[in-house]
Formats: sequence, C-alpha cells, structure tokens
Amino acid sequence: MSEPKTSKSLRNSLAAAGEGQRAEVLAADCPSRAVLAHITSRWGVLVLVVLLDGTHRFSQLRRAIGGVSEKMLAQTLDALAYDGLVLRVAQQVLPPHVEYSLTPLGREAAERLEVLVDWIEDNFPQIKQAQEAATVVAA
Amino acid sequence: MSEPKTSKSLRNSLAAAGEGQRAEVLAADCPSRAVLAHITSRWGVLVLVVLLDGTHRFSQLRRAIGGVSEKMLAQTLDALAYDGLVLRVAQQVLPPHVEYSLTPLGREAAERLEVLVDWIEDNFPQIKQAQEAATVVAA
Repeated sequence: MSEPKTSKSLRNSLAAAGEGQRAEVLAADCPSRAVLAHITSRWGVLVLVVLLDGTHRFSQLRRAIGGVSEKMLAQTLDALAYDGLVLRVAQQVLPPHVEYSLTPLGREAAERLEVLVDWIEDNFPQIKQAQEAATVVAA
Repeated sequence: MSEPKTSKSLRNSLAAAGEGQRAEVLAADCPSRAVLAHITSRWGVLVLVVLLDGTHRFSQLRRAIGGVSEKMLAQTLDALAYDGLVLRVAQQVLPPHVEYSLTPLGREAAERLEVLVDWIEDNFPQIKQAQEAATVVAA
C-alpha cells in the first residue's frame, strides 16, 4: 500500500499558508466548504448547467429542471446569488418578473460542472453495470 | 432576453432518445440523478479527490477529510463502491483492515471533481468578496 500523500490542493494550500489566504475544502472550518456545498447541491448543479444556455426566468428554470419545487429552486438561486455566481435582474415590465443569468464567475463554475454532468451521462451505462454487479454480490 | 435553449446534455440525450439509453440528469426520474448525488455529496467529493493520491485505509481517509464522522464516511464509501467508483479490498493481515482506492471509472470522475475543487479554492477570494457585498446590500 502506498503511503497517503497530500492532495494537489492540500499541497498548494500548505505552500500558500504563510499568506493565510488559500481556501482549503479539506479543512473542516474553511468557509470554502459552504461554496462547495452550494455549487454541488442537488439543485445547484442543475441550475448552473441550465443557465449556461442563457438568461432564464424562474418559471423557465423550473420547467427545465425536472422535479424541483418552487421553494428549493428559490433557496438554490438565493445561495448562488449570494456567492456571486448568479445574477438576478428584476424587469420593470408588466407583469414584472425576475431574470436569472450567470455572472462571469458563475460561468466558470458552470462550465466545470457541465464537464462532470456530461461525464456522468456518458458513463452511466458502465455505472449501472457496476450497480447491478454489486446487487448480485449482495443478494 | 434570449429564449431558453436546451442544454448541450439535453440536446445530446434528445438526439439519442431513440436508443432509450442516454442518461439525462435534468429528468426527474432518471437514475443518473442518484449517481450525481453520490459524486457531488458533501463527503463524496472530498473522498474521491483524496483517493486521487492513492490507496487509503478508512482511518487515513477520516484524518484527511476534516469533520467527517465515521458513519458518514462509511455511508459515502458504500455509495461510491456501489456505483463502481471506489474499490474496497480487505487485507488479510493482522490486524485485518480494508483499503480503499479508485477504480478507473472513479479516477475519471475524481479528476473532474478536482478541477472543480481547485477552481473553488482559487476563486474563493472573489466569491468571498461577492458574499460581503451581498451582506452590505441586505443590511
């Protein structure tokens, strides 16, 4: 067995520790953990990926993301807007409505998530095969 | 406002719908959602990223990931092993112990997650700035 080494991230942050600046998601008390939680939350991933296609109203987002409730979508958008990843613009028209889009920062996060989501969709047949094999072993 | 378009993923899956094979995380009833949930779970992300550095025992994983409980780490490893992303090997030595490593499939997922985690750590100062600005507006 190889000895556990520190991850690339951890090495980077140890190197930069003198500056007291580098975020470290492996540390229990690092506030970057909350951002990781927002971005990788059940609905956060899907909201960010859908917004890669452009500005959406609330109702459009809700239709695009199967199974999301109004409450969960609103909470997800709140958290992503708080992190500066999603922009909320109230349109002063009749009827008034709010439009959601990605900030430049949000676009960077969403592009990385899309790579992950595409990978899951592409590899789902293999994952399903593994799940079926695991079920047979357990049975 | 631009009309909402379908995402790249959605376009791909609509194109492949005839085969009835393509996973679609935007669909509420697609089983790929559970895989997305395992991979992006609070502890799933961190376990996969730490295992990029090589084989770990349970206790080593627990030390590497700040704040994870024994119960949550065990559940996370179960889910990732079930999906065929993590390999569990029982070492018949004294005292007996179990080693965890990435499968080739798990390595692919973990590499994509590491890109995301590195992005969050690199951009955390900007995200924090956005959070502080949001707090001032709300005050």
